[in-house]
Amino acid sequence: MERLPLEELGGWRRCESTGNISHDSGKFFTVQGLDVRFPGSPVDAWTQPIINQPEVGILGILVKRVDGVPHLLMQAKNEPGNHDGPQVSPTVQATRSNYTRVHQGRPVPYLEHFREPSGRVLADVRQSEQGAWFYRKRNRNMVVETAEDVEVLDGFRWLPLGRVHEMLAVPDLVNMDARTVLACMPALGARVPEDDGFRAALIRSRDPRQAAVHGIGEVLSWLSGIRSTVDISTEPIPLNRLRQWRRDDGRISHDSGRFFDIIGVRVASNGREVSGWTQPMIEPVGTGVIAFLVRQIGGVLHALVHARVEPGYTDVVELAPTVQCVPENYDHLPPAARPLFLDEVLGAGPERIRFDTVLSEEGGRFYHARNRYLIVETGEDPAPGHPDFRWLAMHQVVELLRHSYYLNVQARTLSACLDSLSAAAR
Amino acid sequence: MERLPLEELGGWRRCESTGNISHDSGKFFTVQGLDVRFPGSPVDAWTQPIINQPEVGILGILVKRVDGVPHLLMQAKNEPGNHDGPQVSPTVQATRSNYTRVHQGRPVPYLEHFREPSGRVLADVRQSEQGAWFYRKRNRNMVVETAEDVEVLDGFRWLPLGRVHEMLAVPDLVNMDARTVLACMPALGARVPEDDGFRAALIRSRDPRQAAVHGIGEVLSWLSGIRSTVDISTEPIPLNRLRQWRRDDGRISHDSGRFFDIIGVRVASNGREVSGWTQPMIEPVGTGVIAFLVRQIGGVLHALVHARVEPGYTDVVELAPTVQCVPENYDHLPPAARPLFLDEVLGAGPERIRFDTVLSEEGGRFYHARNRYLIVETGEDPAPGHPDFRWLAMHQVVELLRHSYYLNVQARTLSACLDSLSAAAR
Repeated sequence: MERLPLEELGGWRRCESTGNISHDSGKFFTVQGLDVRFPGSPVDAWTQPIINQPEVGILGILVKRVDGVPHLLMQAKNEPGNHDGPQVSPTVQATRSNYTRVHQGRPVPYLEHFREPSGRVLADVRQSEQGAWFYRKRNRNMVVETAEDVEVLDGFRWLPLGRVHEMLAVPDLVNMDARTVLACMPALGARVPEDDGFRAALIRSRDPRQAAVHGIGEVLSWLSGIRSTVDISTEPIPLNRLRQWRRDDGRISHDSGRFFDIIGVRVASNGREVSGWTQPMIEPVGTGVIAFLVRQIGGVLHALVHARVEPGYTDVVELAPTVQCVPENYDHLPPAARPLFLDEVLGAGPERIRFDTVLSEEGGRFYHARNRYLIVETGEDPAPGHPDFRWLAMHQVVELLRHSYYLNVQARTLSACLDSLSAAAR
Repeated sequence: MERLPLEELGGWRRCESTGNISHDSGKFFTVQGLDVRFPGSPVDAWTQPIINQPEVGILGILVKRVDGVPHLLMQAKNEPGNHDGPQVSPTVQATRSNYTRVHQGRPVPYLEHFREPSGRVLADVRQSEQGAWFYRKRNRNMVVETAEDVEVLDGFRWLPLGRVHEMLAVPDLVNMDARTVLACMPALGARVPEDDGFRAALIRSRDPRQAAVHGIGEVLSWLSGIRSTVDISTEPIPLNRLRQWRRDDGRISHDSGRFFDIIGVRVASNGREVSGWTQPMIEPVGTGVIAFLVRQIGGVLHALVHARVEPGYTDVVELAPTVQCVPENYDHLPPAARPLFLDEVLGAGPERIRFDTVLSEEGGRFYHARNRYLIVETGEDPAPGHPDFRWLAMHQVVELLRHSYYLNVQARTLSACLDSLSAAAR
């Protein structure tokens, strides 16, 4: 992987009239502009570059029980944006251009298990990805259980589910695509709460028979109200019509140096569908903080979700972690704009921190995009009745994850990480 | 109500560069163009006018139990597009411009019961409307149960639910907005199947404990697959860039005379928020046929739903009735393009027809838009295994109606009509 000025990307063209960057084939994705008006928010209007990738790809994990223990067929995959080598990836992770072979590469292995499933489909739901960087991107998240003999190709391995759960605690090891599919996977075995501690409250939280603070109808009505009244409008615009962004030194950057850059890279890879290519990528500035505050209510663990607006969402608002931000991006704004609960999360003592690992976002579009994912337990409600936040039991999160666009990709990662904590005493 | 050439609409302007027609306030809605590419369909590319109304309005019905019997507060409302006088409408039917009083009219009565519900929220979900005529329109469908004393204003009346159900069988009486809210309303009382006939199978079909041909996970996976692979792209374009549409004689029409016209009207109304106004409307050509084929499977009634693409849908594909078309629109196309099951429905003998009533679509945007709604029982599956159709039990429809964009507005009308048949032997 080497950096390359945007002007030198072979196979990509810059449209003369709009400045948009797209692939010669018309496939893959386009870097374009977005005009956002969001009156009443800390920044009430802005423009930004955004990736438009209208195709729906497949992220699929193949599951097989070996002696009753669920095993996941995972791939060690190197992506150009990865921080530190290959990461544990789903069985299949393919854009439609990939699997319809626009770039005339090799066929995607195991794809047939998801395109024409002969096994049992345990999950199959389109979910959004980063709404700050992608314009209405959705991928199809699938889990298929097979009973067949499946040949294990080079670079793939059957891993016990518990092993994958342990790997989530290792920095930059399980990739974003694997995490979102793990979040959509239903429980593959019942667990029994053994005591009255955190883990027991978490196990109860996954049990749909347990009570939650708000009924699911109440949660849906809350979100329906916010989605109906939030006053954001977005409009795709030409990339050369951005305000406060400049094209300089072979990249596109914000005048402040904040947020992210659009960069170019050349990839010389083996083990991928094609042998080498160039592409634009998003390189974020800073490491984000993404956290769930969790709390035992009546012996059932609840997570505090935030109804969050991101300009690229298909449906305006999704449920996000309690905290999701890059702290430096708020340095120039007044203190009132500082993200709620950020200080609460960063100031928590180690006895309250249940999970704390830096994980990477998708390495196919994002260059060294890393976030510190935290799960922090609290004994009290830091903002009772705040209109943009609700406490949800995890079985409610699981129910919502059967449908599209309720939980954002960061909340899905945290949901997978939280689930992993119920697997074993640590 | 009188017709008016589009050029003479006071308060509306035609943009010089695009030809788009919008209100001077920038609110309400815009008539613009849409470019549709849908390779592989009978017409693989076209352009059309479409209404862009980005605001989310509220359609709300207030419910109150009187001696245990649910009563609905309904309004007799006259709309400019109504075929034959006032129709039975929800308690509240208001665009956001209405209720934030952009046109400086009177406040919307009963709105506070939905904006700040003090009662029990029985349903609260944003749903799409006609995807052939609206670009990504959504309204918030709400049912709120109150125990308070509510003053009954002029033009409003508490109607027992059973009475509203009977009214559905009367032509052009219950308006579209009332029907979609009725569809989203959960069952307000248990019914017991009394025999083994159609009505008993229908009552069992509403009971979530009853088996269905396909599990809900299987239904969701089917739809996820179609939504992920359907190859339609739509792009808003200026109204003056339409192909095969002409502006002539004060209206916009298709060269063939088919589909619909954009017309202008002047409304002189009393009993509305403002005393008079002008506006553009859609006037469809022909009366549509909209039908569910239903079938008893294991004593449980199932309806045959169609995964249907309409260019204005937020999420590409929604579940539609078995048949939904204006038959004349297909006269010029080859026989293979004729809608599936249309002949099956129109040729059914009276002993198989469970519901057959002409109902109006929304009279605020559509002028004399009427469809013949049919529910036809069949003893056998006319197209086993067709990839675009599935048999659903009604409790599955009810479950999907808690979430946005699964059932289209025509299927919601038929769902409400079907539900009404369970109320009483006829």
